[in-house]
Amino acid sequence: MYSTSQLARRHLVGRPLRRLCLSTRSFSQLQSVTEADLAHFAKILPPSAILSTLSPSSVPSSELEPFNNDWMNKYHGKSTTVLKPRTTQEVSAIVKHCNERRIGIVPQGGNTGLVGGGVPVKDELIVSLANMTNVRSFDDASGILVADAGCILQSLSDYLAPQDHIVPLDLGAKGSCQIGGNVSTNAGGLRLLRYGSLHGSVLGLEVVLPDGTILDQLTTLRKDNTGYDLKQLFIGAEGTLGIVTGVSILTAPAPQASNNVMLALPTFDNVLPLYKAVKRQLSEILSAFEFIDRRAYDLAVKHGQGRALDDSEVEGAECFVLVETSGSSREHDEEKLNKLLESLMGSEPSLINTGVLATSPAQFSSLWAIREGLTEAMSKEGKAYKYDISVPLHKFKEVIDTTREHIKSRGLLREGAVRHVVGYGHVGDGNLHLNVVADAYTPEIEACLEPFVYELVSKYSGSISAEHGIGVMKTHALPYSKNAVSIDWMKKIKHLFDPNGIMNPGKVLEL
Amino acid sequence: MYSTSQLARRHLVGRPLRRLCLSTRSFSQLQSVTEADLAHFAKILPPSAILSTLSPSSVPSSELEPFNNDWMNKYHGKSTTVLKPRTTQEVSAIVKHCNERRIGIVPQGGNTGLVGGGVPVKDELIVSLANMTNVRSFDDASGILVADAGCILQSLSDYLAPQDHIVPLDLGAKGSCQIGGNVSTNAGGLRLLRYGSLHGSVLGLEVVLPDGTILDQLTTLRKDNTGYDLKQLFIGAEGTLGIVTGVSILTAPAPQASNNVMLALPTFDNVLPLYKAVKRQLSEILSAFEFIDRRAYDLAVKHGQGRALDDSEVEGAECFVLVETSGSSREHDEEKLNKLLESLMGSEPSLINTGVLATSPAQFSSLWAIREGLTEAMSKEGKAYKYDISVPLHKFKEVIDTTREHIKSRGLLREGAVRHVVGYGHVGDGNLHLNVVADAYTPEIEACLEPFVYELVSKYSGSISAEHGIGVMKTHALPYSKNAVSIDWMKKIKHLFDPNGIMNPGKVLEL
Repeated sequence: MYSTSQLARRHLVGRPLRRLCLSTRSFSQLQSVTEADLAHFAKILPPSAILSTLSPSSVPSSELEPFNNDWMNKYHGKSTTVLKPRTTQEVSAIVKHCNERRIGIVPQGGNTGLVGGGVPVKDELIVSLANMTNVRSFDDASGILVADAGCILQSLSDYLAPQDHIVPLDLGAKGSCQIGGNVSTNAGGLRLLRYGSLHGSVLGLEVVLPDGTILDQLTTLRKDNTGYDLKQLFIGAEGTLGIVTGVSILTAPAPQASNNVMLALPTFDNVLPLYKAVKRQLSEILSAFEFIDRRAYDLAVKHGQGRALDDSEVEGAECFVLVETSGSSREHDEEKLNKLLESLMGSEPSLINTGVLATSPAQFSSLWAIREGLTEAMSKEGKAYKYDISVPLHKFKEVIDTTREHIKSRGLLREGAVRHVVGYGHVGDGNLHLNVVADAYTPEIEACLEPFVYELVSKYSGSISAEHGIGVMKTHALPYSKNAVSIDWMKKIKHLFDPNGIMNPGKVLEL
Repeated sequence: MYSTSQLARRHLVGRPLRRLCLSTRSFSQLQSVTEADLAHFAKILPPSAILSTLSPSSVPSSELEPFNNDWMNKYHGKSTTVLKPRTTQEVSAIVKHCNERRIGIVPQGGNTGLVGGGVPVKDELIVSLANMTNVRSFDDASGILVADAGCILQSLSDYLAPQDHIVPLDLGAKGSCQIGGNVSTNAGGLRLLRYGSLHGSVLGLEVVLPDGTILDQLTTLRKDNTGYDLKQLFIGAEGTLGIVTGVSILTAPAPQASNNVMLALPTFDNVLPLYKAVKRQLSEILSAFEFIDRRAYDLAVKHGQGRALDDSEVEGAECFVLVETSGSSREHDEEKLNKLLESLMGSEPSLINTGVLATSPAQFSSLWAIREGLTEAMSKEGKAYKYDISVPLHKFKEVIDTTREHIKSRGLLREGAVRHVVGYGHVGDGNLHLNVVADAYTPEIEACLEPFVYELVSKYSGSISAEHGIGVMKTHALPYSKNAVSIDWMKKIKHLFDPNGIMNPGKVLEL
């Protein structure tokens, strides 16, 4: 959806020494892949599934670059070897060997993550799921899909389309990301408001555990109360507890109609009353409620994103809300939307200044383009410090304003330093994207922002990572969102599943 | 929703010796509550929160009966002491003491379970959550409710009603069951098709772990990707990993309109095509799709449950389907329903023989009464062996027919033995209630049914307990739904959290 490259860079610049030391100490217990290991892997896999700079594979290291580096080119591993198993049994055999030999493993899906969770920290073995791409089954009555972890999200969408179903998940990275990676990172995305999180829609998983055991919980049941729901642990574990090889997921009937409307609000104070009114009136057809503050909107318009409202329409607007509906009847949905707009305009005082309803697919896309173009607008405007946080809805403005005031109090809200402090995000999900746009990344601004922002999030019992995960980037910041007892139990769980620490080492938990 | 008392009795009759031996051996490591313990608890709790046959509390044992026995009066504990803490800190102090003293604990909610999970096996201490009944917070914008575990489901519904929200969960036991118990048993119920499982709607939990530590993950965030989602382990753990003391849950906007229709189908083969058509046309307003086979329907009519369709309407019908919609506009919903009925009647050949649409609240209730009256009809007809199972939708009829054929092949489908083999259930959830109605419970019929039915469920990768859980009743049958690796990992998780085995001993996992 947007790049957090700048945030990543700051962390790499700001805190490398202590973390590298810790990593080195722990990584010293892990072994590098050797030619003997390669010989062993050659017994498990065909030559085409082994990519290594070591003999006898001996490919140039450039061939490993797409695997060693993330797509933002921020995180750089030094792995010598990538394996591309085709079956769960092959994954199991690889992992078993690595566990015996204490070789670190990085499970890799589409490598579209934003926090460095999918690339090696050092020279761990990369196990790519890219060759596991079979749809195992689909039941068009129940809507339950079972697929290999390596299936690309867009491929699954394409597979489901003629059968009138959709994956209950949509992401900007859908053309590259894999369903196994989506599950492992508990991807949120654009459909969460409507279809809920993967903890609800994933019905079963097949996972290769760090000792090579295959944990087969690939059921296709909506209801199954037979003991602990272990699969939940792997949803969002970012590959640190095992490698997800198969996914059973409840898909949704494809909506027959989608509509959207952009609303201009005189004040932020109206956002929550508006959200309540929209939820009450649109109820089951509401599929997005996106907040954009005025500064963010102006930057989008300035940089040519989407179709702007008329100047007269936005006069006096403090912020904007994009509402989307998805339903089974265009006529009904439009009637509900029109009725909503009438009641909003008719109320005294009105919650909104004005609203623009899309009346064609082109307008529909154009309204979305304003929201989706915000990232690009920020990057055209300057260097953006980005925070993907969850805070209670009524704190959205307070977080933005408090951060701005804080920057101002340090004398950094000025030309040559911070230009804008803006906010936008998924109100329905409580997910705020806080952006601090500066002329340049400077240690002074960074010191002003961190840990200030994390402390602010912590004060409101929020999340320092709403949807992007922890990866290698935010392990140090975990305590701002998780208390000591929780982190302690995360470590116990990690140790239980992976006592040798081979599985995606250095991710989620600091070593 | 219905009683499984007969099944319970069979198990108690059929397998007592081996299980009692195992239990005794393991329970021998647990200590009984003594007067010294009571003196310790008196330092933690006021006298009114301590109910014990021991001195100085010294109440008559009859006062403990409602806690020692389940509501079906099938499971009988011999606890001497019930504690009713008012705060999480009190729960923590109690548990800490019990862990040090190796006293077994049974966490008890509304005691409405069907598998004996909420009553002691021997003389464990009962910790009742009944005095923890505060709503801690409700945000009417996000719909997020935070409540003490002891809040009764109906009370929460009543609390939410004026705020136009509903708990995303509805059960027959709602007047007694508690939200903490609902979470601990991963209760399914009537709204699962629409609102999904508790794994999706529960956002946070506060849990007292078996060593007394308070695990505070009571967040109110829809999105929070900061590490392992530990709270999921406690959803459906039936109190064996800790005591849930607080719940954060996403509630849903209250629907403004509900409609239902009873459809008569010429053949079971039409159920799945019908389900697909209904899902496609009703989509976001579909809230129930209940299957009733002809024999079950006839028994309901025979015993005066609900409003029967006219004789002419049911002629030639092999089964029935009850469809319910819930939406935000009565007009729109009725239009969608009518359009659906027209298209169903108009298709050639028609998927349905006829359909009866409720046109008043009384008719709405009356159609539901047929479905909800099935349990009572079965018990009036004879002694019912009941199985609460999940199997793939297209296997519903096969499971019923195969079971009937099997009984027939053993010469038991006759007067004086088995009268009816019927099925009904939540098609939308894949949850089939298989009922074998006999003149009397006999070892011969039981031997014919078990493990036959469990093996059948296992063959279709189904669940031997779709919604009721394992409790003490089905621990022996767990392997039919969970493979050895999964059970092994359940044991490891249990041991990690509860190394002394004090927390709800003998439940979920055999000791």
